[in-house]
Amino acid sequence: MPTSLDAYQESMLPAVEQAMQAVLSRAHQHTDDGLYHMLAYHMGWEGEGAGPRARGKRIRPLLLLLTAEAAGGAWRQAIPAAAAVELLHNFSLIHDDIEDNDQRRRGRPTVWTQWGVPLAINGGDALFSLAHLAVLELYPSLNAETTLQAARILQQTALHLTQGQHLDITYETLEKVSIEAYWQMVEGKTAALLAACTETGALIAGATESARRAYREFGRMLGMAFQAWDDYLGIWGDAALTGKSTTGDLMERKKTLPILYGLQQNQSFAQLWREGWPRNPADVPHMAAALEADGARAYTQAVAASLTEQALAALEEAQPQGQAGQALHELAQRLLNRQK
Amino acid sequence: MPTSLDAYQESMLPAVEQAMQAVLSRAHQHTDDGLYHMLAYHMGWEGEGAGPRARGKRIRPLLLLLTAEAAGGAWRQAIPAAAAVELLHNFSLIHDDIEDNDQRRRGRPTVWTQWGVPLAINGGDALFSLAHLAVLELYPSLNAETTLQAARILQQTALHLTQGQHLDITYETLEKVSIEAYWQMVEGKTAALLAACTETGALIAGATESARRAYREFGRMLGMAFQAWDDYLGIWGDAALTGKSTTGDLMERKKTLPILYGLQQNQSFAQLWREGWPRNPADVPHMAAALEADGARAYTQAVAASLTEQALAALEEAQPQGQAGQALHELAQRLLNRQK
Repeated sequence: MPTSLDAYQESMLPAVEQAMQAVLSRAHQHTDDGLYHMLAYHMGWEGEGAGPRARGKRIRPLLLLLTAEAAGGAWRQAIPAAAAVELLHNFSLIHDDIEDNDQRRRGRPTVWTQWGVPLAINGGDALFSLAHLAVLELYPSLNAETTLQAARILQQTALHLTQGQHLDITYETLEKVSIEAYWQMVEGKTAALLAACTETGALIAGATESARRAYREFGRMLGMAFQAWDDYLGIWGDAALTGKSTTGDLMERKKTLPILYGLQQNQSFAQLWREGWPRNPADVPHMAAALEADGARAYTQAVAASLTEQALAALEEAQPQGQAGQALHELAQRLLNRQK
Repeated sequence: MPTSLDAYQESMLPAVEQAMQAVLSRAHQHTDDGLYHMLAYHMGWEGEGAGPRARGKRIRPLLLLLTAEAAGGAWRQAIPAAAAVELLHNFSLIHDDIEDNDQRRRGRPTVWTQWGVPLAINGGDALFSLAHLAVLELYPSLNAETTLQAARILQQTALHLTQGQHLDITYETLEKVSIEAYWQMVEGKTAALLAACTETGALIAGATESARRAYREFGRMLGMAFQAWDDYLGIWGDAALTGKSTTGDLMERKKTLPILYGLQQNQSFAQLWREGWPRNPADVPHMAAALEADGARAYTQAVAASLTEQALAALEEAQPQGQAGQALHELAQRLLNRQK
């Protein structure tokens, strides 16, 4: 039996996809469509492997539209903003893939590996402009003042994303990163855009100031909690179910929450890490066990559970209404109860 | 004796600089100011070689503010938009320098050579966001509808810039580029932003629809004419006066207007070019002479002169008023009569 979330998804996602395609068609030029095709490839609409899997889950527009509806608005009015947040997210992926030297994204070669770095940087910039153009289409169905507010939220979020990414790139080369610094990075890289989705949905619905604040906090905490669980799964998750190798975060020496906690404890895990462990995938189970013995598994679980509670409490406070409110709960549960 | 252009520059440019600094301070973060300092370096405010020379001529904000005043407005009201166009221009320089592999800009090392490509891409993105945030500050001194229009012009221009840059990068690897295709590239890379400056200035001044169109056309033609003269000087300019080597465009095998015209003639220049000439700087005078013999010098001069006339005719039609109108004329003359 389809849940209400499934039912909403079925009507919302095609509408967002169509809106994004209409926005993208502006990147067409008569004598050279190369820019358009590059972006259509990245969006999962064209090229080898195009299709739903290449598009990602489109969580952000869904979150925005469900919030608009649950906060008392009509989700269709919010479509331009939903298109904008997904385009913004996709812009950041094009550039992140270059910056992180990632060759694959959603099962396909990344834009820069296909077209080269110069065209990929420029293509990302084009998608960034298109995201900003998309949100302006809220007007005149929405009034000019509210449209300006939505545009400002989107642009501040884009700035926040770059601040998070700056920290992320910088941390890679640092010996020591504090847990506080880690959360500052996550705020920018993950939480800011989810907070923008829920805040913008509530704004468009004409929610009260306090409801808007609560929705924003819900999105923000959802992002933090999601990241904490993601970090947990990066070490103790079931590789088969997540589709990631459990050897991932340790082998890649990523500075995730459990690893930073383990380093801070300065016990057996920290010593192995400083000696350059893990040297190969076979070392990983031993490293994970050392990390657990130093308390990092229990710590990460506790933090993730607490953030999940805070996210759900913020949602409660926002008092989401009707079927959409129910669907919003379901979405949060799905994101946060993946494979504990 | 200072001309009226000099007098305006003296009051306008410090005001724009201050507004941009206020916008940039938003990129500050408490625990890591790295992103801010990178951008402040690029803007010419910090680091080795900081100062007026490292800032460029700030032509775009000047053009916007003079237009606002000449079209009957008050230039101070347009400052947020002036800051926005200069920030947008500077964002595009950070990314262009990476894409074109340029190591120096305004006499200093480029951002990517100082901080590496990943942080430089991300820093450019931050400046892009800041440009978009800046223009929104027209509100509430200006009404919300007009602010939205200004934001839309800026964002469409940003998209147009990426379309021009896409063509530019693509043309580098093409054997044959038509003169029509060349102008399409220049429209995006150079003319679009100048057109946005004059249109936005007129918009903020509350000019009539027809005056706005004329101002826009003035900016656009100014950009095209500027590029034609720049291409001319790239081959026949006085190296000592332009600060560029006259060997530049030919040695770099740039597809500029005279070179594309020469190739189209398919005579002595085209033959040398296809054989790989110039092989060294000593070949350049001979190549330039061949190009001139094939009619490219006269052609480029004629095109540049015609575009200059069109720019001045559009300005005439816009009927710029007062001292600022006079200064706008002076600015156009200065840009277009550099070293013929």
